[in-house]
Amino acid sequence: MIRILCRDGAARRGEAATAHGLFQTPAFMPVGTAGAVKALTCEDLEEIGVEIILGNTYHLYLRPGPETIRESGGLAAFSGWGKPTLTDSGGYQVFSLKDRLRISDDGVEFRSHHDGSTHLFTPEKVIQIQHAIGADIIMAFDQCVPYPAERRAVEEGVRRTGEWAARCAREHERRSESGPDPGRLFGIVQGGTYADFRTRSAEQILALDLPGNAIGGLSVGESKAEMEAMLAHTVPLLPADKPRYLMGVGYPEDILTAVSYGVDMFDCVLPTRNARTGNVFTTVGPITYRNAAYAQDQRPLDPHCGCRVCRRYTRAYLRHLYNQSEITGIVLASYHSVYFFQELMRGIRRAIEERRFDAFRREFLARYAGE
Amino acid sequence: MIRILCRDGAARRGEAATAHGLFQTPAFMPVGTAGAVKALTCEDLEEIGVEIILGNTYHLYLRPGPETIRESGGLAAFSGWGKPTLTDSGGYQVFSLKDRLRISDDGVEFRSHHDGSTHLFTPEKVIQIQHAIGADIIMAFDQCVPYPAERRAVEEGVRRTGEWAARCAREHERRSESGPDPGRLFGIVQGGTYADFRTRSAEQILALDLPGNAIGGLSVGESKAEMEAMLAHTVPLLPADKPRYLMGVGYPEDILTAVSYGVDMFDCVLPTRNARTGNVFTTVGPITYRNAAYAQDQRPLDPHCGCRVCRRYTRAYLRHLYNQSEITGIVLASYHSVYFFQELMRGIRRAIEERRFDAFRREFLARYAGE
Repeated sequence: MIRILCRDGAARRGEAATAHGLFQTPAFMPVGTAGAVKALTCEDLEEIGVEIILGNTYHLYLRPGPETIRESGGLAAFSGWGKPTLTDSGGYQVFSLKDRLRISDDGVEFRSHHDGSTHLFTPEKVIQIQHAIGADIIMAFDQCVPYPAERRAVEEGVRRTGEWAARCAREHERRSESGPDPGRLFGIVQGGTYADFRTRSAEQILALDLPGNAIGGLSVGESKAEMEAMLAHTVPLLPADKPRYLMGVGYPEDILTAVSYGVDMFDCVLPTRNARTGNVFTTVGPITYRNAAYAQDQRPLDPHCGCRVCRRYTRAYLRHLYNQSEITGIVLASYHSVYFFQELMRGIRRAIEERRFDAFRREFLARYAGE
Repeated sequence: MIRILCRDGAARRGEAATAHGLFQTPAFMPVGTAGAVKALTCEDLEEIGVEIILGNTYHLYLRPGPETIRESGGLAAFSGWGKPTLTDSGGYQVFSLKDRLRISDDGVEFRSHHDGSTHLFTPEKVIQIQHAIGADIIMAFDQCVPYPAERRAVEEGVRRTGEWAARCAREHERRSESGPDPGRLFGIVQGGTYADFRTRSAEQILALDLPGNAIGGLSVGESKAEMEAMLAHTVPLLPADKPRYLMGVGYPEDILTAVSYGVDMFDCVLPTRNARTGNVFTTVGPITYRNAAYAQDQRPLDPHCGCRVCRRYTRAYLRHLYNQSEITGIVLASYHSVYFFQELMRGIRRAIEERRFDAFRREFLARYAGE
C-alpha cells in the first residue's frame, strides 16, 4: 500500500493508498479522538493540507458506538471527512485506565470512564469494532506496558501482543471474506526499551505478513536517547516495502529523529491538546501564549508561519481570548498548531526529495532552539 | 450615515457607512462579547457574509481593558475583524448585575463578575471607554429598567437615560475635537411598555440630534403583543433619515415584525448562545440537536440551508459531538445559526427591494412554524 518515491539515507518519501484516497509520507495524523480533531472542522483540516486523521477505537466504541458509525457509512462518512482515516487498537487507552481493568490472555475487562460500565476487549472484539467503524487502516490489539517496566512485565506484554496480533489477523481475515472493504490491518511491535524484546516482538508481528507495521510503547516516559536507541534497533527490522508507523509521537525533534531512521507515519494529540492549555508550537520553539508577557504583543503566534491565523491575529488577541475561555481562541491556536505539524511534514518531504534531509533537520532544530 | 435605497411599506432597505466600510440594512449584528463571536473566527464571519459585529463595553472594559484595545489600534484591528463594529453602552450588562450595583444620578457603581472589584460607570466614563475601544458606532449610557416595572420606576429610568444621553453627547463632542475618528454616537430610547414614556424618551433623545437612534428595553420579558405595540408607537417617532436600531432582538419573528415598522439594525446572542446549549434555528423552526431523537438522523441540521455545515455534516454527527463536549460541534452549530440569521436578513433585504416583504414574511413564518 505504500510506494516509496525516493530516499535520502534511511529517510523515505512515499505515497500510501487507501480506499478513501492517497496520503503522502512521512505523514503526521492529527488525532480525532471522538471523530473530530478537537476544535477543528473538516474544512480547516483540508485547508491545512491534512490527508489522514486518526480516531480512537476506545472512545468511538463507547460513544457513539460502532453501530451508529457503521449506519452512517463508516468513520469517513460519519465525520464528514471523506478522506483516509485510521483507528488505533484501543490498547493504549484501555491500559491507561490502570485501576479500572483486569487483564488476562483472553483480553482486557475495563470500566468506562463515562459511566463505570464494564466492557471486555478481546482481539476479536477489537477487530469487529474497528470493522464497524470502518477506517482505512486498523490496528491489532496490543498490550502497552507502562514505563519504566521490569523485563518480566515487558516480556509478558510482548508475548500477549504477539498472540493477540495473530488472533486479530485471523478475525480480520475471517470477517474480510464477507462485507465491504475491511481496511488494512497493521501489527504493532512492543518490547519497551529492551532491544531483545523488540526483536522478538518484531519477529512475531512480521510473521503475520500484515500490510503495515507500527512501533508502539515509545514516547511513554523514556528518555530521548532510549527512544532513539529503540528506533535505531527496531525500524531496520521492519520491511522496507510496507508503511512504518511510530505511534503517539510526537514532538518535532522526535519526528525528525524517527524519519531519519525510515519511519513513514506519526500521530499525536500534542498540537491540539497543547493549544487547549495555552501552548503552541512555533518555528522558533514552543510558546505559552496565555502568558501575561504577551498581553500587548502585536506579533503573530509564529512570525515565520504563513497560516491564516498567523497572517491575521496577534498574540495579544489570542492571549486575551484564552484568558476569557473563548472557544474562538482555542480554535485559532489549534489551527496554527496543526498547521505547524503539517508544514513540518511538508518540509521533511521536500527535503527528502531534494536529498537534503540532514541539513533541513539541522536548520529546523537550530531555529526551533531559538538560535 | 444611512442611505435608504428603497422602501416597501414602512420597511426600509438601506446602506450604512462607517470608517471601516459599509453594511447593508436591515442588518443583524452577531454579538462578540469579548471581541470574538463565540466559537467563530473572522474568516467564518466573512464567509457567512456578516458585515458588522457588536462588542460588549462592560466585558471589554474589564478584560482586556480599553487601553490594550486602543494600543492594538481599536476593536476592528485588535480582533482581526477589520470591518465595522459597534459597542453597546454597558448599561444592559451593568443593570443585569442587580445586587452588585449602586445607582445614582451620577452613574452606576458595580462589582466585576470576575473578581468583585468595584467600578464606576458614569456617562462620561462610558464614552471614554468606548472611544478607547474605538468601534465605528458607540452607544449612549442608558438605564434599562427590568420588566415588569411600575410607571414610577420607568419614569425615573427615562429621566436618567435622557440626562445621561445629554452628558454622553457632550463628552463625545468634547473628546471628538482631538484624537482619531471617535465613531458615531447613537442615543437609546427607553420607556418600558408605556407609550407616553416612550414618547417622552424619544423627545429627549432626538433633541440631541445624534447620527442614529436605538430602542432599548424591549425583549426583556414582555409579551410579543406588548413589544409590537411599543414598536408601532416608537419607530415612527424616530427620524427616517437616520439608522434605527432595536437592541437585543432577537427571534426571527420579532426581527420580521420590527422590520415591518422600519427598523434597520438588530443584535442578539441567541444564535451563538443557543448553539452552545444544543439548539439551532432552522428554516423549519428551532431544533434541539442534542436530543437522542437525532442519534441516527442522517439529515443536515436544516434541510433547506445551503451553509457549509448543512452541506457536509449530519444531525447524528453533531448530536454526538455535542454529547461528547467536542468544541468542533459548538463551532459547527454556531456557524449554521449565525448563517441562518444572515440568510434571513438577506431574504428580508431582497424582499424589500422586490416590494414583496409581506409575502416573504408570511411564507417564512409558515415554513418556520412547520406548516
